[in-house]
Amino acid sequence: MRFFSDNAAPACPEALAAIAAANRVDVAYDGDRWSRRLDSAFSELFEREVAALWVSTGTAANALALAAFAPPYGRILCHRQAHIEVDECGAPEFYTGGAKLLLGEGEGAKLAPDAVTALMAGITDDVHRAPPAALSITNATEYGCVYTPEETAALGELCKAHGLGFHLDGARFANAVASLGCAPADLTWRAGVDALSFGFTKNGGLSAEALILFDPALAEATRYRRKRAGHLLSKGRYLAAQILAMLEDGVWLRNARAANAAAARLAAAAGDERLIHPVEANEMFVRVSAGEAASLRAQGFDFYDWGPGEARLVTSWDSDPAHVDALAAAIRAL
Amino acid sequence: MRFFSDNAAPACPEALAAIAAANRVDVAYDGDRWSRRLDSAFSELFEREVAALWVSTGTAANALALAAFAPPYGRILCHRQAHIEVDECGAPEFYTGGAKLLLGEGEGAKLAPDAVTALMAGITDDVHRAPPAALSITNATEYGCVYTPEETAALGELCKAHGLGFHLDGARFANAVASLGCAPADLTWRAGVDALSFGFTKNGGLSAEALILFDPALAEATRYRRKRAGHLLSKGRYLAAQILAMLEDGVWLRNARAANAAAARLAAAAGDERLIHPVEANEMFVRVSAGEAASLRAQGFDFYDWGPGEARLVTSWDSDPAHVDALAAAIRAL
Amino acid sequence: MRFFSDNAAPACPEALAAIAAANRVDVAYDGDRWSRRLDSAFSELFEREVAALWVSTGTAANALALAAFAPPYGRILCHRQAHIEVDECGAPEFYTGGAKLLLGEGEGAKLAPDAVTALMAGITDDVHRAPPAALSITNATEYGCVYTPEETAALGELCKAHGLGFHLDGARFANAVASLGCAPADLTWRAGVDALSFGFTKNGGLSAEALILFDPALAEATRYRRKRAGHLLSKGRYLAAQILAMLEDGVWLRNARAANAAAARLAAAAGDERLIHPVEANEMFVRVSAGEAASLRAQGFDFYDWGPGEARLVTSWDSDPAHVDALAAAIRAL
Amino acid sequence: MRFFSDNAAPACPEALAAIAAANRVDVAYDGDRWSRRLDSAFSELFEREVAALWVSTGTAANALALAAFAPPYGRILCHRQAHIEVDECGAPEFYTGGAKLLLGEGEGAKLAPDAVTALMAGITDDVHRAPPAALSITNATEYGCVYTPEETAALGELCKAHGLGFHLDGARFANAVASLGCAPADLTWRAGVDALSFGFTKNGGLSAEALILFDPALAEATRYRRKRAGHLLSKGRYLAAQILAMLEDGVWLRNARAANAAAARLAAAAGDERLIHPVEANEMFVRVSAGEAASLRAQGFDFYDWGPGEARLVTSWDSDPAHVDALAAAIRAL
Repeated sequence: MRFFSDNAAPACPEALAAIAAANRVDVAYDGDRWSRRLDSAFSELFEREVAALWVSTGTAANALALAAFAPPYGRILCHRQAHIEVDECGAPEFYTGGAKLLLGEGEGAKLAPDAVTALMAGITDDVHRAPPAALSITNATEYGCVYTPEETAALGELCKAHGLGFHLDGARFANAVASLGCAPADLTWRAGVDALSFGFTKNGGLSAEALILFDPALAEATRYRRKRAGHLLSKGRYLAAQILAMLEDGVWLRNARAANAAAARLAAAAGDERLIHPVEANEMFVRVSAGEAASLRAQGFDFYDWGPGEARLVTSWDSDPAHVDALAAAIRAL
Repeated sequence: MRFFSDNAAPACPEALAAIAAANRVDVAYDGDRWSRRLDSAFSELFEREVAALWVSTGTAANALALAAFAPPYGRILCHRQAHIEVDECGAPEFYTGGAKLLLGEGEGAKLAPDAVTALMAGITDDVHRAPPAALSITNATEYGCVYTPEETAALGELCKAHGLGFHLDGARFANAVASLGCAPADLTWRAGVDALSFGFTKNGGLSAEALILFDPALAEATRYRRKRAGHLLSKGRYLAAQILAMLEDGVWLRNARAANAAAARLAAAAGDERLIHPVEANEMFVRVSAGEAASLRAQGFDFYDWGPGEARLVTSWDSDPAHVDALAAAIRAL
Repeated sequence: MRFFSDNAAPACPEALAAIAAANRVDVAYDGDRWSRRLDSAFSELFEREVAALWVSTGTAANALALAAFAPPYGRILCHRQAHIEVDECGAPEFYTGGAKLLLGEGEGAKLAPDAVTALMAGITDDVHRAPPAALSITNATEYGCVYTPEETAALGELCKAHGLGFHLDGARFANAVASLGCAPADLTWRAGVDALSFGFTKNGGLSAEALILFDPALAEATRYRRKRAGHLLSKGRYLAAQILAMLEDGVWLRNARAANAAAARLAAAAGDERLIHPVEANEMFVRVSAGEAASLRAQGFDFYDWGPGEARLVTSWDSDPAHVDALAAAIRAL
Repeated sequence: MRFFSDNAAPACPEALAAIAAANRVDVAYDGDRWSRRLDSAFSELFEREVAALWVSTGTAANALALAAFAPPYGRILCHRQAHIEVDECGAPEFYTGGAKLLLGEGEGAKLAPDAVTALMAGITDDVHRAPPAALSITNATEYGCVYTPEETAALGELCKAHGLGFHLDGARFANAVASLGCAPADLTWRAGVDALSFGFTKNGGLSAEALILFDPALAEATRYRRKRAGHLLSKGRYLAAQILAMLEDGVWLRNARAANAAAARLAAAAGDERLIHPVEANEMFVRVSAGEAASLRAQGFDFYDWGPGEARLVTSWDSDPAHVDALAAAIRAL
């Protein structure tokens, strides 16, 4: 019974079926019939014209987005726990040509406007200091919390006031939308977001992410950068087909809701005292003693420790209700 | 009837079946049961210990290999028509941090030792000039020719004498091996090759390439570079499974032989006078007038022009024998 | 009697005096009274508003200029013999983050519009190919030839038509202006040049070059890049003072005229048959046998061989007339 | 009466005289008689074989040193207040190709072994995290404190244990040596330091810094990097001559002692309560109210504010004793 990562989950049937359906001759790279539909499919979803590029990893999507905003001598503001800082081995630095990350603080891996303002205040306007160029947030965050449209918009206003590009790492964007029940537009361009890494892999794809540029004029340079980074797959139709299949009939939302619901059931079982952060998406961080963790593992539950006395439990689109119920019961019984 | 690109071909049944079989829970990134078998599978194929990393494109494999050899201030020698120079939008420069490519000449996109020696002679040993760090060749070449083991070994000796890393872009390595009937080892490490981009995508994969490092000590840094470039897929098992499936029972060789055989039939039909380069793999470059090209297209054959009066015809693992026969007849009838 | 390099020459008295005069307390970096006068001094010289940044080498000036025009995925067109290609160990690649250089041909290291057009024609508009971003020429060229205002303007029109930044490597710009007797503006912005590396070191400075940006809006990013490259000297006033002193009373032109005149006398002595390129500035490339070269050296003349049977002779601002006369006589006597 | 920066000071007579003496014909770049003596001059000073390269700024020296240790995917540990983090606009990121800086804490801008160990503990050995590659400290620190030989050696042992390159930013190395009265070797290679940025500019040079590599094998790559960064001055003899002149007869130590002594007198006047950090070199950070600061300025003393209620006072090799006495009196009188 696996709760260690949504990356460990298999692909959903719709994604697999799309790959099978795309298994025919077509133009290489992104000239095929599926890839050419991406822009319009996402424009419809986001209720405005956007440019959409498939890539095979979230790290690539994030780094391409940041390179669209930050010059090599620029600075990117993000949370100290942001994936781009902690888990990408310097991909933002690589793609931007050496931009610096400036790290802020906040509960649940969320950055509040005050935290951003404090970071900005520390950068004197002086050629000796890399100037701020972009803000990047993650929604849902690395700790399973969500930014509301209002919270996002408050940051978006700061970005506009300071001329910062605003990037949203949406590896679990679907979970955030499902959690909030809002329109995708409300969490993005209506709130000032300029680029979104829209994750499909954790949510049921094989390897498919979409980089959404709300200013389509950014697409040309980004397409060159994607090629140059080795991310222009020669048979890109398999990526595009997965994404389109998951957009159709709201598969992406259905999958995310399933994962969120499973996490909510676990959270209810854990109770507020165990919860380190509010459970607003498909991740739960709980306080468990070493003995308790061992006991859960002995009962067949697989998860990661997250520092001493803490554990991370992740649900996914295919979390087996029986396993979830069993884990909920086991947590209650601790 | 399509002869424009082996990238346009669908995936072979073995690759698709492997993806279906891998569609289960496993450890993320490259910790899964398939990825962990890559080193040994390729070590067996190459008759020595190697390190093997999956990536999703040949451009990524090439650029990672070159970054393993060339410092930012170094120089990479290659043919003027090399894919790394012509078709990768500067990926080698990106991954190496700015190494320079030095371009040599040769028929059929092949570099002979003399050409390499001439390039080396032009680089004075002087801090003002980027020093040579690597040689990269492509086998089969961009013009469908092959280097024999002996030709490769002659270059390998040059590399050793001058301290150059020796990279082989093997986007169509399978076609070269199938054409020559030699052991994979004979075209690589036995001939002094240090790193191979072993292509599976053009040969029947969905998106799967293997970077083979004949010095496994290079793997550690390369794994960091792969992650940093956004090429460490979170569900890497789908790549590993494709590759393993194509290695099994010689699927990779069978696919390549089919493509080569189709090209050979077309070459026989075209005759020496039409052929711009010897047809030794699965690509054929022919002299055709504009009228002849139009006539072929009118009969339903799809292919790319390759400059005025020239056309490129590419066969693939799934080239339909009936289509090949029809094209051969049409060429004879020109 | 030295004729091997204008880099070997000492500094002129005006430059040294300026350093002595600047040897007092002032604000660090480029906040001092001398640095703050650079923009206006060059704006006057060029008859329009420009931004001027001191740097200590021509390589830095060139690389900063190119980075202002070429994105990492872009391409810079230049002559095969250009200093930026041959003698800077990849500085343009370093500063641009990996832009590619595309090399053209032409007598005397000059690029004609036809050559540029031919280079442009070879770049298909396709994400696989790095797109052209800048043209860089050298005036006076690496072979001592000059571009006239008309020749420069013809290239400038090409740049405008194709959206290329136009960079002029003017390590010997003073010699070109002195040779042509035109206004500095005629060789630069009036001819479409966007950025000029204006060399003072070879012409009598200690280590002082000025990067002139004819679009002052480029200065902000370039100032960050200069700092980040370690080229913002903390006591920049010594650079600024040298440059201002050489601008005053036309010292820069007087020095260049002296060097050019010396070269002209040598050229007259050599005669057309010996001359490999027209002598239009302060460099002379001549055909001499090994025996002749040895004979000249035996008479005390110091110079570089430039390939078999060829020699390079360089004059400078301080070339001793007696030495020049002696060498002219020796050449005539060969 | 200026106390705002040692960069504002003029050059010392010995440096100027050396420039005048070097104002003669010699080989360009670093082939001249002065540059060729650098290795041996510093080898003598450091009592072991070293390689020494001149550069014109400390930022360049620091960045070249870090690039010698840290791969693009690596991490550099330093203090949060380190010049390489705060004041170089991303030069380390530029020269290394994107290495990340990891910031530690400590009084007086000093890093203790515990702080380094804590940083190391936070980096899991995992391809998702940039691995540690180098430690960089500054001596004297940005807050005017010094590391003793013992403190340095304790860090050196950590570096050795973890395979980190150990870089010392010695923009004010002379002040540290003068303060401690130890041998230069004791603060560097005997304590495990691998590379030193040895500053001469703040200490009386015009623009001259020496990068000292205690492992001379690092010099070859670094010389290429220096050229590529545009830091190989064509008339490098003026830099080399300054440095040699300041090494001779202990000018560098004499200058540093003068600056330190002036600071010590000011510190004595200020008293412990005003001092924010111990005054161990030539910088003093003091608590002064806005009114007090205004009063000092009204008396003709020039200095920088350093946050609210704090000021920085810097002495230099040429601090006028009368000015120092006057300031000391003024501080006492506050």
